[in-house]
Amino acid sequence: MSLVRVHNFSVSLDGYGAGEGQRLDAPFGHAGHRLVEWAVGTRTFRDMGVPGESPGSRGVDDAFASAWGPGIGAEIMGRNKFGPQRGPWEDEEWKGWWGDNPVFHTPVIVLTHHPRPMLEMEGGTSFHFVDADPASTLELARTLAGDLDVRIGGGVTTVRQFLEADLIDHMHVVVVPIVLGRGERLWDGLEGLEQRFTIEATPSPLGVLHLILTRRLSP
Amino acid sequence: MSLVRVHNFSVSLDGYGAGEGQRLDAPFGHAGHRLVEWAVGTRTFRDMGVPGESPGSRGVDDAFASAWGPGIGAEIMGRNKFGPQRGPWEDEEWKGWWGDNPVFHTPVIVLTHHPRPMLEMEGGTSFHFVDADPASTLELARTLAGDLDVRIGGGVTTVRQFLEADLIDHMHVVVVPIVLGRGERLWDGLEGLEQRFTIEATPSPLGVLHLILTRRLSP
Repeated sequence: MSLVRVHNFSVSLDGYGAGEGQRLDAPFGHAGHRLVEWAVGTRTFRDMGVPGESPGSRGVDDAFASAWGPGIGAEIMGRNKFGPQRGPWEDEEWKGWWGDNPVFHTPVIVLTHHPRPMLEMEGGTSFHFVDADPASTLELARTLAGDLDVRIGGGVTTVRQFLEADLIDHMHVVVVPIVLGRGERLWDGLEGLEQRFTIEATPSPLGVLHLILTRRLSP
Repeated sequence: MSLVRVHNFSVSLDGYGAGEGQRLDAPFGHAGHRLVEWAVGTRTFRDMGVPGESPGSRGVDDAFASAWGPGIGAEIMGRNKFGPQRGPWEDEEWKGWWGDNPVFHTPVIVLTHHPRPMLEMEGGTSFHFVDADPASTLELARTLAGDLDVRIGGGVTTVRQFLEADLIDHMHVVVVPIVLGRGERLWDGLEGLEQRFTIEATPSPLGVLHLILTRRLSP
């Protein structure tokens, strides 16, 4: 059975995965880039087109960051990750943040209450707009992924919904030592989550903590 | 100038420093001992009388745990740390959780809206029951401490009040990878705290993360 995985998901000390006030020019709201600073300096993110002066680090942060791609056959993302529009689509010309050749190179399911036609992009990425519950969405994603794994790409609400439905097997969370104070909380409603997962913690020289949550085998 | 320090203060991934439902037989509420497990196995806590089979670990957890005592001349604690009674004192026979010779060996200020006579204990500990705001309490504690540092001993509300008043210089927080879901949150109202402190993170083989927050020098 293929796995359902989450990668490179940052939260603040107070458990926020995104700040308040997300907009086109502020995709993480008032959090700015502070939640993702550990990632943008890695070789993996430079290779995805994140600008920077160096070729990117190859230390522990990159070791974790680079795991997001291999073995993935499809991604599921929330609509807010796909773009800043809310409600009915006013501009179907919007094709995501990632240009004509997006970084995914697999089918991507975009969860939305407002379906629109599938978008076929360059490089193997296609966007499928779906209005369904987590279990049904995952079933569709598994069909699209073949024998490969499915990645839950975020944002916060989407990851939390799949955790609540107990559909996630592997999760890489990065605790960033900042206090955001407001935004979207990842952990709400997930009391006792550690009973469903083993949790391994590894720090980085940048001061963030990489957590790997692995679903415990059923008895 | 003496410092104001916090040591061995555990929080969950979702930022709770204590669970819900604190009682005489459950001082951490539904959190049980999960927040303090990292500490009770250390030599420092064994020396304070925490029962256990081994003489206690001497690794990184103990290195941090042991820093709580040296250089401290007084502690400030909230009333809920002193004991389980709420409201007017019904039982003045209660002299804290720590026996006739408490672990502190310094004056201890207990914050309460219901003052009672000072308690002189064995071994240098005295309990002073005070109804005052953080700044005035600290002034009194500094007088009691002489040239030594003042420790803010908890619980959650007390630490948060002193952080809000910007009275803390050094703080050791331990992030424990559990999701408590309810209880008392440490970080509420402290948005942007990282701008006031440098934060160093060190992991432990137990999977917890030791954070050392050091107040930035004023410009």
